[in-house]
Amino acid sequence: MTRTDIARLRALDEAHVIHPHRPVTHPGTVIIDRGAGCLIWDVEGREYLDATAGLAVTHVGHAHPALVAAATEQLGRLEYYPSFWEYGNPRAIELAARLAALAPTGPGKVFFTSGGSEGIEAALRMARFYHHEGGEPGRTVVLARTSAYHGVGYGSGSLTGFADYHVGFAPMLPDVRHLTPPWSYRRELFDGADPTDFCVRELERVIAEVGPGRIAAFVGEPVMGVAGMVTPPADYWPRIVDVLRANGILFVADEVICAYGRTGHWFATERYGVTPDITVTAKGLTSGYVPLGAVLVSTEVAARLDRGPDGFPIGYTYSGHPTACAVAMANLDVIERDGLVERSASLGARLLDDLSALADRSAVGEVRGAGLMLGLELVRDTPAGPDIGANVSRYIRAKHGVIIRNHDNVLSISPPLVVTDEQADRIVDAVRDALDRLDPDGTVS
Amino acid sequence: MTRTDIARLRALDEAHVIHPHRPVTHPGTVIIDRGAGCLIWDVEGREYLDATAGLAVTHVGHAHPALVAAATEQLGRLEYYPSFWEYGNPRAIELAARLAALAPTGPGKVFFTSGGSEGIEAALRMARFYHHEGGEPGRTVVLARTSAYHGVGYGSGSLTGFADYHVGFAPMLPDVRHLTPPWSYRRELFDGADPTDFCVRELERVIAEVGPGRIAAFVGEPVMGVAGMVTPPADYWPRIVDVLRANGILFVADEVICAYGRTGHWFATERYGVTPDITVTAKGLTSGYVPLGAVLVSTEVAARLDRGPDGFPIGYTYSGHPTACAVAMANLDVIERDGLVERSASLGARLLDDLSALADRSAVGEVRGAGLMLGLELVRDTPAGPDIGANVSRYIRAKHGVIIRNHDNVLSISPPLVVTDEQADRIVDAVRDALDRLDPDGTVS
Repeated sequence: MTRTDIARLRALDEAHVIHPHRPVTHPGTVIIDRGAGCLIWDVEGREYLDATAGLAVTHVGHAHPALVAAATEQLGRLEYYPSFWEYGNPRAIELAARLAALAPTGPGKVFFTSGGSEGIEAALRMARFYHHEGGEPGRTVVLARTSAYHGVGYGSGSLTGFADYHVGFAPMLPDVRHLTPPWSYRRELFDGADPTDFCVRELERVIAEVGPGRIAAFVGEPVMGVAGMVTPPADYWPRIVDVLRANGILFVADEVICAYGRTGHWFATERYGVTPDITVTAKGLTSGYVPLGAVLVSTEVAARLDRGPDGFPIGYTYSGHPTACAVAMANLDVIERDGLVERSASLGARLLDDLSALADRSAVGEVRGAGLMLGLELVRDTPAGPDIGANVSRYIRAKHGVIIRNHDNVLSISPPLVVTDEQADRIVDAVRDALDRLDPDGTVS
Repeated sequence: MTRTDIARLRALDEAHVIHPHRPVTHPGTVIIDRGAGCLIWDVEGREYLDATAGLAVTHVGHAHPALVAAATEQLGRLEYYPSFWEYGNPRAIELAARLAALAPTGPGKVFFTSGGSEGIEAALRMARFYHHEGGEPGRTVVLARTSAYHGVGYGSGSLTGFADYHVGFAPMLPDVRHLTPPWSYRRELFDGADPTDFCVRELERVIAEVGPGRIAAFVGEPVMGVAGMVTPPADYWPRIVDVLRANGILFVADEVICAYGRTGHWFATERYGVTPDITVTAKGLTSGYVPLGAVLVSTEVAARLDRGPDGFPIGYTYSGHPTACAVAMANLDVIERDGLVERSASLGARLLDDLSALADRSAVGEVRGAGLMLGLELVRDTPAGPDIGANVSRYIRAKHGVIIRNHDNVLSISPPLVVTDEQADRIVDAVRDALDRLDPDGTVS
């Protein structure tokens, strides 16, 4: 691409594209043009190691020939046809059966979407509808958690527990309550109590306040992604789920980031020994080659959803999209054949060890992880505050050509599951170098 | 496919797929396996003429080689990378520039989604955020219309004006009001007044009631799709938009079905001589080969959305998906090269004439259309009520192998824009035959 072409692209980008979360004073668009495995190249030919897998999407790496072939074949056969009413297609049926066999909810049913936000919207509707059909129409309240990220639709975005997604957009959906997240490192959240004890007592108190017959569901990410890869204490989920079950409250696991191997298990709820009623998945399901989400529903919940005279009365145009489903089948084949779930567990454990070795640096607050979903929380009490995270991640990109993500002062690392040992070393080296060059004011020099 | 294979697929489908709107007593799944142009085939080899283009999606017909080639090329180069923050990709930038040049809103900015529901969620957020950033945070109320369809997310679904999408799912989003649709045929809606006069007066009354500084936006489909291809009187949109402009209320056009040629114009607002502030599009943008939506925003509105320190602070993982954008470019190439917008206008006019010739049948209430978006409303006062529509559409599929859609007692026809003259004749012949065989009780024999 010539300099003129690149300058033209930059001008068109400024003029015509609304980028999510890009302020007017951004540092210049990085226009990504090509990818292969864990590497990507921008239009100027600069190479980067994609240590975030896009937005924790690209499980099998970029431009994988098996997924390209599966998409091409299905596009030429039947690119799309709806699954509304009595219509269906073989790829959606085969994928649903495969997911039902894998699902932590047991061999129930699958509702297809085009992504995570749509999946959470659907799960929220399912939870309320389930109780409505079961003769408890008063169960409309949904519990979520502060610092949770569940998407940006009006339902999913109301569950999202960051003010940024509400200010300027309110009023949000009624009957949503946010609880304290099990973010152990943030000790100030728990009044000196054990984090799990605190969260369980808070849940019991909220149930008593709201009324036990008023709550439809509890929605949570097993490991909290956008917050900064927050891993809960081992006893958090089992104890929370016990309280939910005792009160007839559905447990909806938001595994949009976690599922299909990211945490070293097929599903993160398996890691924590709990069984959800509904599991929302997307991202890693197709590695992002074609947008697709799948909401996995237990047999018991499903039995109430689509048994009425109108069935489950909502649908997305692309529910069961044949090409997306064909790509998902090829993607799951690669994950199984190449042992990527096991790879995520073993390499993730090694990366966690290597990053934990950096915890002696004064700027490091906590290092945590589950499989290839790793977070490094920097201390916040520098003059730079949350900018410290942005400073570090920008330095790492500029100096080492490694793309990691920061949310405020947490660095998040989530490479494709096919990341090599050498590439993992490169990530650790880049982080180490940045920490060693970090000045007390939060800048890197 | 062997009989055993087909039986297995059917069993897996029943066990594992949640189909939108499929009741437990459905007439047996039609499993679509292959497509080409306007034809599709099920797993048993039966051929159908797809006279609905899926869900009004497939503008260029099924399995078009140019779109398959574009997808394959991009998947092998860079299947996906996000457009969050300062990241972008050439395909998204090129498509945004092309859409800005086409857009009825003028050469503003584009926000990409994966479909129509997501687009309406985003437009709703944009409308509130625009006023919030402009110093009018009290403008949160959104006006929509009864019988409107805007999707099934919690924001989009709250705008949707059918009870089916609310019962069992409430409480919905606050600050949404539904007005009377310009459905001229339903004279009972207008108290004997002219439909446009009635709707304009109602809008003025609601603005006065709610308060002029409280309303963010009016969201409407230029031609109402799911309701049954309801075309408004020619003076409806100009007069409504005049009132909106006079009151500082944004006009959001939901062109998810209409855009890119469906109504015989690039955008349906052009047909009606009005200029929206925000236009929501999806479906025909990629002909459904890869899920994609584009929200087209006027320069003036865009200038307030992404100029703050955090930019426009929401995003979807797949916003600006490179493969989806590459497919959209190829799709727009086909629409332009093959003159499909003009084709939709001319063939649509002919189909409207041919179907109007059936209006002398006693069961026919009204025939209406805009380009290749046609509706035939059957009278409702038969013993069969709304079932008359289902009876007719099922007969047409079984006897003629033509797939049309009904919503209650309205038959909807929206073939791919590449439908041939002979195929158009086949659609009319099938409808004529069904009407001629329609018994007074609403059954077809």
